[in-house]
Amino acid sequence: MDYNEKTIEVKKIFDGKIIKLELQTVELCNNKKAEREIIRHNGGVAILPVTQNNEIILVRQFRKPYDEELLEIPAGKLEKGEMPEICAERELKEETGCSADKISFMTVMYPSPGYTDEKIYIYKAEGLCEGSLSLDEDEFLDVEKYTLIEAVQMIKTGIIKDAKSIIAILFLVAEINS
Amino acid sequence: MDYNEKTIEVKKIFDGKIIKLELQTVELCNNKKAEREIIRHNGGVAILPVTQNNEIILVRQFRKPYDEELLEIPAGKLEKGEMPEICAERELKEETGCSADKISFMTVMYPSPGYTDEKIYIYKAEGLCEGSLSLDEDEFLDVEKYTLIEAVQMIKTGIIKDAKSIIAILFLVAEINS
Repeated sequence: MDYNEKTIEVKKIFDGKIIKLELQTVELCNNKKAEREIIRHNGGVAILPVTQNNEIILVRQFRKPYDEELLEIPAGKLEKGEMPEICAERELKEETGCSADKISFMTVMYPSPGYTDEKIYIYKAEGLCEGSLSLDEDEFLDVEKYTLIEAVQMIKTGIIKDAKSIIAILFLVAEINS
Repeated sequence: MDYNEKTIEVKKIFDGKIIKLELQTVELCNNKKAEREIIRHNGGVAILPVTQNNEIILVRQFRKPYDEELLEIPAGKLEKGEMPEICAERELKEETGCSADKISFMTVMYPSPGYTDEKIYIYKAEGLCEGSLSLDEDEFLDVEKYTLIEAVQMIKTGIIKDAKSIIAILFLVAEINS
């Protein structure tokens, strides 16, 4: 069936540094109208750094929406018009200090399709060469290394909760097992 | 290190049916100030329905933020104060028509921790008994069944892009393999 929703009206509510918010009136496939609350986001990139010893590099940082420190793979926001691969290289360098011989695309994921249009492009980085971090002015994080087995265990026990990180690590496991 | 960000000021921008938006001024661990754009969401529940034949039930629905039809596991928004298990049962029934003998908690995931506080509780439903759908007034979807192997293939080829669905299916695979 075609359940396409036709945009009737767009009301722009907020235009921020990270997100925009708009309210759409749409026409449903039964010709009734409904409201949709939509976050516009430029898209993000996440990178799973895998060392020669098959260790995973994670960053621990404070996330204000949850008031919690989270363990995540390095990630960042796409600049307007920026190629995801370029962003992946930059964020890997900034957040872990590493440069990589090989950066390969794993998948793209949609974090919460009910209200946000963000797409997160996930890459794997291999052949790592360690250097020094160059964080943004308001960015603070610790870099930590875990074996793949430890990382999977931290997913199963709910220590790693971040969606892009879970997906990247379980993708790597699925790659190895296939 | 303690990278806690202290809330200095909260400015409420929008209060909608699905999301709220607030702008926070925070004090960083270096005593500088920064702005945080934060989406408040009541939390969601997603259910991976697994049939006696080890098939997965997915729903195909139009998602306005992407202007795309997506394949997802059944899911819904938590009502205020609602227990996630109760919500899981309700959404499973509404979106697939199924009731389940057994609903078990898989994990909780954070879809995009940079700007939203949404938590998605993921459950597995087994011992399914099929009935008729009871969708919300502005909800339209198709119910489809896939083998677990097909579902994993659809993740690897990027056909399934929704984060909660990827995580639930790869969790099930990890459970089976462990």
